[in-house]
Amino acid sequence: MQKYGGTSLAGAERIKAVARRIAATKDGGNQVVVVVSAMGDTTDELIELAYQVAEEPSARELDLLLSTGEIVSSTLLAMALRDTGYEAISLSGAQAGIQTDSAHRQARILKVESRRVIKELEAGKIVIVAGFQGVTGEMDITTLGRGGSDTTAVALAASLGASVCQIYTDVDGVYTADPRLAPDARPLAEVGYEEMLELATYGAKVLHPRAVELGELYNVPILVASSFSDKPGTLIHGGAPMEVRNKVMGIAHDLDVAKITVVGVPDRPGIAASIFQPLAQAGISIDTIVQNASIEKITDLTFTVAKSELAEAMRVVKPIAKEIKARECLSDSELGKVSIIGTGMQNTPGYAARMFTTLSERGINIQLITTSEIRITCIIEAAKVEDAVRALHRAFELETGT
Amino acid sequence: MQKYGGTSLAGAERIKAVARRIAATKDGGNQVVVVVSAMGDTTDELIELAYQVAEEPSARELDLLLSTGEIVSSTLLAMALRDTGYEAISLSGAQAGIQTDSAHRQARILKVESRRVIKELEAGKIVIVAGFQGVTGEMDITTLGRGGSDTTAVALAASLGASVCQIYTDVDGVYTADPRLAPDARPLAEVGYEEMLELATYGAKVLHPRAVELGELYNVPILVASSFSDKPGTLIHGGAPMEVRNKVMGIAHDLDVAKITVVGVPDRPGIAASIFQPLAQAGISIDTIVQNASIEKITDLTFTVAKSELAEAMRVVKPIAKEIKARECLSDSELGKVSIIGTGMQNTPGYAARMFTTLSERGINIQLITTSEIRITCIIEAAKVEDAVRALHRAFELETGT
Repeated sequence: MQKYGGTSLAGAERIKAVARRIAATKDGGNQVVVVVSAMGDTTDELIELAYQVAEEPSARELDLLLSTGEIVSSTLLAMALRDTGYEAISLSGAQAGIQTDSAHRQARILKVESRRVIKELEAGKIVIVAGFQGVTGEMDITTLGRGGSDTTAVALAASLGASVCQIYTDVDGVYTADPRLAPDARPLAEVGYEEMLELATYGAKVLHPRAVELGELYNVPILVASSFSDKPGTLIHGGAPMEVRNKVMGIAHDLDVAKITVVGVPDRPGIAASIFQPLAQAGISIDTIVQNASIEKITDLTFTVAKSELAEAMRVVKPIAKEIKARECLSDSELGKVSIIGTGMQNTPGYAARMFTTLSERGINIQLITTSEIRITCIIEAAKVEDAVRALHRAFELETGT
Repeated sequence: MQKYGGTSLAGAERIKAVARRIAATKDGGNQVVVVVSAMGDTTDELIELAYQVAEEPSARELDLLLSTGEIVSSTLLAMALRDTGYEAISLSGAQAGIQTDSAHRQARILKVESRRVIKELEAGKIVIVAGFQGVTGEMDITTLGRGGSDTTAVALAASLGASVCQIYTDVDGVYTADPRLAPDARPLAEVGYEEMLELATYGAKVLHPRAVELGELYNVPILVASSFSDKPGTLIHGGAPMEVRNKVMGIAHDLDVAKITVVGVPDRPGIAASIFQPLAQAGISIDTIVQNASIEKITDLTFTVAKSELAEAMRVVKPIAKEIKARECLSDSELGKVSIIGTGMQNTPGYAARMFTTLSERGINIQLITTSEIRITCIIEAAKVEDAVRALHRAFELETGT
């Protein structure tokens, strides 16, 4: 099972290069299933077209429209393979049996009915599947939302019992930190599902958290590697060796963070629900939530959202703040997140201390802190994120590796 | 039932204009089903992409690739309608139940399973169907070949019992001759299926013969009109009034004609088959065939093909000519066809005489003649076609109409 991203398929020459890589895998005696994204900027161009004809394009129509992008790249790749003498066949998501619910723009895979894929594999063919898309019970076409093609690939790999799901992209693998920020960052040879999930959720864009979750659920090893090089890449799997666990393995960051603080909230039951229920209904994802200790039954409630959703969130929250007699409602859109990720972090208090000390030494003020079993996240000024990533990368000696 | 061609849908503004036309039809109290072609040059661009990745793209893959063109235009049109407050839904050929055989690139419709279309119509929706495509019993996507979207529209109209199938294109209707050649040409208000079939087969590009045949078979009236104007267009139907029959109603022409003559063929049974069987196997369509009267068991065999197929046809025919001991094998690619079309022609010998006289008066040499019940076709030098069309248009007084 291989998956190629849009950058790897942008243009006829790159498609032919990908065909040669797939042919080599087939020559190695493997049955090969390939999932593809749309070529280059195709998806963005289709969305732009949609907004030229309609102010608010219907989600159902947009899904059918966008699904053509992956069909184009899958058919071209199949043609390129056949033209060099390899039996290949492309299948749309529907033909490949990717059955989803009917939540257009963000459908979830319910089942993979892989009969057709297996039939073509048994006929000796290389099967190219259009990623990012599926079909409902009513035969309507859906798309899977962000990270959709990665999710298609891992779901198909699980359903077919593939030995590995290779995700080919334009980076060499998963790094200890974003190499654009931390020049010392190095690619990880392997990483566990949970750590990858935290890395992906907290800023590493290389692989979508959904695909990682699915990989963990069905125990599908995922290799992330570059389609432009022969470097080994990063293997994400459940059996990462004991000795590399129990330490910090990477730094994640995210610059798309805005904060809302509702100041002077009367501290009584139901107040949190009265704020977060309407936000959920408006489709706004809340990330971190922090409530200050209550002083004389008055508290401050702080939470973060994506920058792009700040205006809408403020529109929802302001009238509620007034209604519940909060003092005021503040926002800050110039924030970022920096996280250290590694197993066993909660049992090793030294990590948190070292993180906070490192940031303080660089004069970086921590606005919010959240933690999980394998992650500590600090929300800081956006302008300080790059400095923070570099300092933490050095402080946890990630440049030396193991 | 309406159908819009690619020129009518080239770009966001034209799509919105088509949406307004459809909305007006809906406002008139009609249930509306619309079939669309791909936007502008989309199909040609996709074919070019295919030839960039493969010398000989697989027909099965090409069909799946090309089918995306009509899906893009159908979804955009549905979005544009919904955005102006009309309930609309787009359906791919497969979703609309266009079931075909598996002859990729030129599939024939076996059945229209219109359950889904009817369901959406009954829910009050405008249904937009991607033309030119269908699906096999194995769920593979096919395309219908030339004239495919017109054929989709007429097949759907027949299956739904639509009162009329309106084909909107970039011309005002069916003309008495091509207006670019004969400035006096005028649009016909109505024409019978058979005459339209001859017109379409013998050069009038406005509607594909397949669609006309299907219309005749299921008695679906077809209106051909411009999407850029409000002119009435031409109605093609079975009940054209008696008084406009029994006369020449139009001149067709075709510049895509090449001729092959096998000279000095021994005239014995099986010779024709030995030439035309291999041509059929090579997928070459033969048009006119003429065999000269045999003199001492030696004859000349002449036939015409499309210019683009001349080289391939000569490659097939030359070794056969040698094998059957023909004297030589000649070709001419600078030919054209001009036809007069009207009912009752065979019972009115004056028509043929007037045609031949008119051409001879203009100094135009007739190379081959073929006739049907409602048509007389002369093959002449390509350079003389324009002159011939004008002269015949005047000779049969088509500029005055009835």
